[in-house]
Amino acid sequence: MTDPLNPDGRDLRIGIDLGGTRIKAGLVDPTGRILDRVVVDVGQQTSMEDITERLVRLVELLARDGTVGVGVAAAGVMDRRSGVIRESPNFPAWRDFDLAGRVAASSGLPVLLENDANAVVFGEAMGGAGRGVRDLVGLTLGTGVGGGLVLGGQLYRGARGMAGELGHVTVEPEGRPCACNNRGCLEQYVGQVGLRRTLAETGGSLASLADDADAPRKLAHAAQAGDERALAIWRQLGRYLGQAIATFVHVLDVQLILLCGGIAHSADLFLPALDDEFTQRTFTSMREGVVIRAGVLGEDAGIVGAAFSATA
Amino acid sequence: MTDPLNPDGRDLRIGIDLGGTRIKAGLVDPTGRILDRVVVDVGQQTSMEDITERLVRLVELLARDGTVGVGVAAAGVMDRRSGVIRESPNFPAWRDFDLAGRVAASSGLPVLLENDANAVVFGEAMGGAGRGVRDLVGLTLGTGVGGGLVLGGQLYRGARGMAGELGHVTVEPEGRPCACNNRGCLEQYVGQVGLRRTLAETGGSLASLADDADAPRKLAHAAQAGDERALAIWRQLGRYLGQAIATFVHVLDVQLILLCGGIAHSADLFLPALDDEFTQRTFTSMREGVVIRAGVLGEDAGIVGAAFSATA
Repeated sequence: MTDPLNPDGRDLRIGIDLGGTRIKAGLVDPTGRILDRVVVDVGQQTSMEDITERLVRLVELLARDGTVGVGVAAAGVMDRRSGVIRESPNFPAWRDFDLAGRVAASSGLPVLLENDANAVVFGEAMGGAGRGVRDLVGLTLGTGVGGGLVLGGQLYRGARGMAGELGHVTVEPEGRPCACNNRGCLEQYVGQVGLRRTLAETGGSLASLADDADAPRKLAHAAQAGDERALAIWRQLGRYLGQAIATFVHVLDVQLILLCGGIAHSADLFLPALDDEFTQRTFTSMREGVVIRAGVLGEDAGIVGAAFSATA
Repeated sequence: MTDPLNPDGRDLRIGIDLGGTRIKAGLVDPTGRILDRVVVDVGQQTSMEDITERLVRLVELLARDGTVGVGVAAAGVMDRRSGVIRESPNFPAWRDFDLAGRVAASSGLPVLLENDANAVVFGEAMGGAGRGVRDLVGLTLGTGVGGGLVLGGQLYRGARGMAGELGHVTVEPEGRPCACNNRGCLEQYVGQVGLRRTLAETGGSLASLADDADAPRKLAHAAQAGDERALAIWRQLGRYLGQAIATFVHVLDVQLILLCGGIAHSADLFLPALDDEFTQRTFTSMREGVVIRAGVLGEDAGIVGAAFSATA
């Protein structure tokens, strides 16, 4: 009998976006469309056993005929091939946890891990704003700044699966210290943490936002209401991004730069300054034809990317 | 009858390094060894016809049974697939010159073009200091600064064949203006032109080297003789390189950084400062196991890389 969700019997993949507070999972078709989805809450105290159990249940719920694999996107240090999560910022108790192996054993499906930023960018590349583009760089502008590279149509993971640490490129050689040891990392000026550091330095009425987890949204409202200092902060963020993007384009000659994550929702506030800076810092033949734009999948990007990385 | 130069009948490739004053060509075996070589002089006034003629003769001289292709490394803007050189800094009169097509028609062998910096790095990757390494970044430290990327064991050329413009990444946001329009490009501090700008700014007895085409060698002699200011200039060059290399490693997670070109001969004078800066700007797990070293093929790297790119 034909499956109404998959009438053509195409290969389907389950993508799981394992966040620190929620697990989002979806059944994804080869075009990147999410056919079915489930979301469950978790907490930092949730044990490895409980997480494993929930992932197995999600896979059972979503799997149907034609499901060929499961991809799990997570933060932290992991070994994609062995399926082991070495350490996780979201689940500090986890050490060398064979997450993929456990889920694979229970579900009978192959399971592969993927870095969460890689998954977001790969999702946009395969089913979102980057479809059909062979070479692109994606930045994830969230609490911090991460990224992913799609080169020659494939996710490029680097020698040890750590490629795309775009938040730690230097944009201000003597700038703000970063937890990574460096000074002036992009992440210190862009992303929620960087924005809040800028707000703390700015003083005045906006300084009160420095301790507000909702600072990016409130700063966007202030800018939209015409607050000059708020507008200037978004322009500064755009200039730092433009400088970093000029470097990525000179190194990689990509056609497309994707801006993903929460901060990208405010792209209209920083794109003009970003584009000015990018133009000033890139030579003409290198810059021509390069498109810089926000992703389109929003919260779904991680699910779609995890699904595509299940067999890639 | 067995060819003594190629007793096992392996595939051979001809690599041609087309410089502004000399054409260097070699017959290269699959291990990257140059079995036979020819060098001829040219000048900027040499016509396109004469260059074509000389390349055809070189191919005739070097080709023997088992030769499967010809690679030509050149500076400038070129279209690898069509074999057309759009513009060349070494031969300003050339415009949209179908170099590869002409040599292929006369020689009967397939001919592919390659960017000269890519060829140097690919040569080191396939037959020199990068053998067996899947992911590496190579910098060419010559008059200016260029580079090449080997990712997943293959030369990564980018969307339009322009990847690896490593000399134009920003290391000093408000720094020296560059011909590319940007300020503070790596090339403005590293490489012969950058070094001479530093010498001009330094003043004192070393300032006289600012107009000397042999400045890097003389500055190395001064440093080796214990001249403190010369030593400081090499350390500054090392720090800028270290900063840029930290960025390349964060973006690409490569295992190896190769330093090629004339300035790399003085690596002992700048590697300690480079390594300090790289260490300070890179987080531990990203930095671990990364090797930074000079190339080993010297002037032959372009020939070997051109040969390997003939069929890659």
